[in-house]
Amino acid sequence: MRTFIAVDLGGTNIRAAIVQEDGEILDVQKKKTEAHLGKEHVMQTMEDLIASLDGYQEAEGIGLGIPGPTDTVNGKIIISNNLPDLIGYPIADHIQNRFHKPTFMANDVKVAGLAEALLGEGRGKKNVYFMTISTGVAGAMILDGKVLSGFHGHGGEIGNAIIDPTRAPIAGLNPGAAESWVSGPAIVREGNQACGKQFEHAGQLFEAAATDPNAKKVVERFKDDLAVLLANVCFVCDPEMILIQGGVMKSSADFLDDVQERMRNLLFPGMRETVLASATIEEPGLVGAAMLAKSQMD
Amino acid sequence: MRTFIAVDLGGTNIRAAIVQEDGEILDVQKKKTEAHLGKEHVMQTMEDLIASLDGYQEAEGIGLGIPGPTDTVNGKIIISNNLPDLIGYPIADHIQNRFHKPTFMANDVKVAGLAEALLGEGRGKKNVYFMTISTGVAGAMILDGKVLSGFHGHGGEIGNAIIDPTRAPIAGLNPGAAESWVSGPAIVREGNQACGKQFEHAGQLFEAAATDPNAKKVVERFKDDLAVLLANVCFVCDPEMILIQGGVMKSSADFLDDVQERMRNLLFPGMRETVLASATIEEPGLVGAAMLAKSQMD
Repeated sequence: MRTFIAVDLGGTNIRAAIVQEDGEILDVQKKKTEAHLGKEHVMQTMEDLIASLDGYQEAEGIGLGIPGPTDTVNGKIIISNNLPDLIGYPIADHIQNRFHKPTFMANDVKVAGLAEALLGEGRGKKNVYFMTISTGVAGAMILDGKVLSGFHGHGGEIGNAIIDPTRAPIAGLNPGAAESWVSGPAIVREGNQACGKQFEHAGQLFEAAATDPNAKKVVERFKDDLAVLLANVCFVCDPEMILIQGGVMKSSADFLDDVQERMRNLLFPGMRETVLASATIEEPGLVGAAMLAKSQMD
Repeated sequence: MRTFIAVDLGGTNIRAAIVQEDGEILDVQKKKTEAHLGKEHVMQTMEDLIASLDGYQEAEGIGLGIPGPTDTVNGKIIISNNLPDLIGYPIADHIQNRFHKPTFMANDVKVAGLAEALLGEGRGKKNVYFMTISTGVAGAMILDGKVLSGFHGHGGEIGNAIIDPTRAPIAGLNPGAAESWVSGPAIVREGNQACGKQFEHAGQLFEAAATDPNAKKVVERFKDDLAVLLANVCFVCDPEMILIQGGVMKSSADFLDDVQERMRNLLFPGMRETVLASATIEEPGLVGAAMLAKSQMD
């Protein structure tokens, strides 16, 4: 079976893996990123990790998943808080020259979306929207098995999409930006304020909503806000299915059905079959990086 | 030079044309639609029009532009107020069987967007967003020379996208739906209310705004609303350029630069080169229908 090399370059760790075209991970290695030691160090760590993988020489291509917006055409990071020294560095070219294999790079959310669209719940579907609801909120459109990066590498940055322009801006994002209202930290912030408590994560607020009417109000607004965001995405690209991953989805039993219903009520009748579901791939970052290489080479 | 047959099926008229691949229209014929006489009559009129075109036998394929959401895969109308008898009828198959040429069908806004993206201001660009601001508001994403219809044929129906969920719903659309606030009739409605006048079209309100502070308020809100809609589209698909057509664009000198600036202020820094411009093709419906056939056959 064909294999691909996957690299998940994070602010804390770099992971590299050999992944079969069916998504099975055959070998995986991990090292600390240590970005403060400079880009040469990070690139060397990445090279060493790849070269330590069992079967790396037989792999057909290399896919890199990188946090934040990326220049997919030139294989460079555009913005990064965790990897500032690597901004603008031709990461993909560097790896391609070292291993003599076609190398592709994309944002980690897009890469994860590719995994879900090709091998997860979106398998066999032509038009899938993928979304992460975690510390941040972002999305990815996967059309005919390829992920859209957008002209400036910012396609899918729906965390800054405006769901209600009458709300105040928070933390540099737009007024009423989605990430300011439907992310994990946003739910905790609103829950703490409404309930006078110190929730540690969004899950606790969803639990509290069963008995605390103030918590319930926050949860209901979250559902409305998420429904507006998703409906707006549907009006732009009209997917068959929307798949969501991320920490907040641990509580999906408490909100996903309601959000699907509210989203459908905002859509035109002909779009109301649009499915909202949880993402299911266990290692979407690694599997997706491999699928990025595969999708670009096929 | 290669030629294609273009059909613009409207509620009032059907037009058919021979269009060169460079967009030049060589022959065009028009007849009343007379939808009340039934689908057989409409289909016969369409056939007669095509067969009356000078050079129709040499054309490589046929493109049909149809108002409202269409099932592009099966070549059928999904919803139509003006052509109810044709809903669900296999229009594209019928025409293909009659003329023995590959026949494709899409919504008229998408078809016009294809004309602009391929032969107009978007020429040579890979990721163009097209939008119409007229009686209705709708859009189309054109990626790599192909227009996205979406899974249910509703991709680009951004007239129902929510720009402010705190506003009341109007005429069956969502609360704060874009079309309820940035369309021509919406501008007139708000202008009449703010100024106590009876404007006949949006252009009169834009003129009045030069001297009437109440009219100016309406225009400023229109600019803000349009900027929110466009920014939200950009966060989903991050185009290089947004091209706008439609009656309201007759007044573009009064608002387009401001809207571009406000839109850019809502975008991430890396996206702020996104260009907002007027569409320029004179017959986008016919040229685009021909380009639909070409883009699907190439």
